[in-house]
Amino acid sequence: MKAEIIATGTELLLGQTVNTNARFLSEKLAQMGIDVYWHTVVGDNAVRLEAALRLALSRSDIIITSGGLGPTMDDLTKETVAKVLQLPLEVNAEWERQLINMFASRGSKMTQNNYKQALLPRGAKLITNDYGTAPGIWLEHRDKIIVLLPGPPRELEPMFIEKIMPLLPSSGSSLVSRTLKVVGLGESSVEDKLAEIIAAQTNPTIAPLAKLGEVHLRLTAKARSKTECQELLDETEAKLTARLGNAIYARDEQTMGSVVAELLSKNKLSLALAESCTGGYLAHTLTNIPGSSSFFSAGLVTYSNEAKSKLLGIPLQFIEEHDAVSAEVGRAMASQVREVAESDLGLGITGIAGPTGGTADKPVGLVYIALATPTTVTCQRFNFFGKRENIKERAVMSALNMLRLYLIQLG
Amino acid sequence: MKAEIIATGTELLLGQTVNTNARFLSEKLAQMGIDVYWHTVVGDNAVRLEAALRLALSRSDIIITSGGLGPTMDDLTKETVAKVLQLPLEVNAEWERQLINMFASRGSKMTQNNYKQALLPRGAKLITNDYGTAPGIWLEHRDKIIVLLPGPPRELEPMFIEKIMPLLPSSGSSLVSRTLKVVGLGESSVEDKLAEIIAAQTNPTIAPLAKLGEVHLRLTAKARSKTECQELLDETEAKLTARLGNAIYARDEQTMGSVVAELLSKNKLSLALAESCTGGYLAHTLTNIPGSSSFFSAGLVTYSNEAKSKLLGIPLQFIEEHDAVSAEVGRAMASQVREVAESDLGLGITGIAGPTGGTADKPVGLVYIALATPTTVTCQRFNFFGKRENIKERAVMSALNMLRLYLIQLG
Repeated sequence: MKAEIIATGTELLLGQTVNTNARFLSEKLAQMGIDVYWHTVVGDNAVRLEAALRLALSRSDIIITSGGLGPTMDDLTKETVAKVLQLPLEVNAEWERQLINMFASRGSKMTQNNYKQALLPRGAKLITNDYGTAPGIWLEHRDKIIVLLPGPPRELEPMFIEKIMPLLPSSGSSLVSRTLKVVGLGESSVEDKLAEIIAAQTNPTIAPLAKLGEVHLRLTAKARSKTECQELLDETEAKLTARLGNAIYARDEQTMGSVVAELLSKNKLSLALAESCTGGYLAHTLTNIPGSSSFFSAGLVTYSNEAKSKLLGIPLQFIEEHDAVSAEVGRAMASQVREVAESDLGLGITGIAGPTGGTADKPVGLVYIALATPTTVTCQRFNFFGKRENIKERAVMSALNMLRLYLIQLG
Repeated sequence: MKAEIIATGTELLLGQTVNTNARFLSEKLAQMGIDVYWHTVVGDNAVRLEAALRLALSRSDIIITSGGLGPTMDDLTKETVAKVLQLPLEVNAEWERQLINMFASRGSKMTQNNYKQALLPRGAKLITNDYGTAPGIWLEHRDKIIVLLPGPPRELEPMFIEKIMPLLPSSGSSLVSRTLKVVGLGESSVEDKLAEIIAAQTNPTIAPLAKLGEVHLRLTAKARSKTECQELLDETEAKLTARLGNAIYARDEQTMGSVVAELLSKNKLSLALAESCTGGYLAHTLTNIPGSSSFFSAGLVTYSNEAKSKLLGIPLQFIEEHDAVSAEVGRAMASQVREVAESDLGLGITGIAGPTGGTADKPVGLVYIALATPTTVTCQRFNFFGKRENIKERAVMSALNMLRLYLIQLG
């Protein structure tokens, strides 16, 4: 089976956006053992889209398009596919009803142009869109499969994984990837530790990838079945874990937040946060996890000295004596927020996110992170680098990692 | 002049890398006023690359390829171009000497396969590569321009800017884009309001782009000079503003956060936040802005009823009576956080971010946002849809927009 991807959108040809949809779809198709031979990008232009479709039909078995399914005049994909295949467009009454309901539930009137989102080429299967108004389309025509997907990645990705992949034919060989996430070690030090293993290993391959504040190891196995691939991956993961130990904190879709959330839930411990330089980013990261209300007590974003004093009950004099960015104030924040929110654990973060506010003594990127438990308060000093957002992100990652290492040793 | 970009590389078709070269080249060409009509990606395969080249020669004036110029067997671009144009490959003695020197200076011997990097189709101009061993190639053939660039972005980008752009024909015209950001109206309703203007308008063009919780209008003007472009953009912006008014909240690099931050600073007003379902995301968004400490008093993330009661002083009975997700509790959060943090303004957000916790009465996505000012407390009810993160994002956007509209009318 040969597949081909056609992305539409003048913004791609103007260089305003990058074609991440083609990357995503190619990766998923490769995992299924389906070869992708071509990517094409055309603008919102019916003549050129028609040419691209005719060419694709002449050389590929599976054609997947992204974009051009919305309500506006620029959205031409469905109309052009129907024209090329000489199929009439027909109203899908059920989707039309759903659209009307969707608009009504938001309290807004559905405008006329939205009705065209309920049109479907005759014989096509409508693929519901859980994250937008434009449905996807599945069309089998002679010996070809044509799949039309909406352009926004947040709509295209779940639709493809949940609704299109199960419909696609499977091939003889499988490719399965696994990502192991490593924290607390730089890329070169990870590569150093793993040099022999990486050199000796051809299946799965191991590719280290430097990320912000962490390193990802991408393992890719090829075998006759997914099960065989998984076995190969398990073997390699065991070898890597023996070498890196606790530095491997997560796998694939797991994040530092989800790992910590799981450990907190498992240990039935509640957590409260006092954030200064991370400004709520740690709270945001943890509350992104569904069910976080079971362990998340409260978060305080106390930027100013006044807020630290008023909300956390740390005396202003104490803050001025030690400086707001100090181990003492970090420790006080952690233990006070634990008290104030009546939680089992408290995290306190104070530092200088920049770009201004640094001194020779206390430069931008200096961050103190403290963890208060029922029995102890520990504090670590970090020197991060990078832009304001990067420093916030590294601090959040390090705070969660401190918490993770504490929770792990609870057993 | 019509241009077309062909990227080669099996890694692109496997989804291991994203085609950033096409984005980069498209953006630069657009700035020069050269229209790009097609992007194509092919693997490291001579047959399919040949087909892509023949097709490109039949429809475009300028063809730019990226990748496939290196020393390995996979590198086929130069050979395939020479074959399609029926040009012999000849040794460029100077580059061969440079290659030998380059290897010698690194203390390594030049392997045999590296010699092919000094081969050039007859009549081509060699473009030196300051960051790698594979030179670029400039070829004028009949009325076509063919440019071959190395694949790695750190080689391709400086080579294109420094050495190719000066060689390309100037279209005598400039292209300048401007993005206007619209909030509070869906894509179809924006288009409805602007249908006449968009239809009547060819320069600048106006392209609506749906984003999460907002719509971007991308205006692109073409004229003889950048100044003329700016004038055209100003005219169109004035027309759009007349039609959409306050719904246009920002331009280009501005964000909702930066706009609100500027308005708060201008009015010398401080802000405190009480967040429930947004879980610190609003605090994070505002504290991402350098200098936010000048207006940001404090943020409380009060997920549980207990936290709302303990930290904000809202009686538990009041919360239970009205339900945590209610206009009453939203209003109480806004006015209490304003009191507790002694700030000029308070924002309170309470809702159901999902995926669980919704009921028929109070579904996932129901969010109350309240704004407390020195004189009033107002509350709005929203029904958002999408995933947990999307609901958080839409709620943050709407809260900031409420604040923006209040600050604007202060004058």
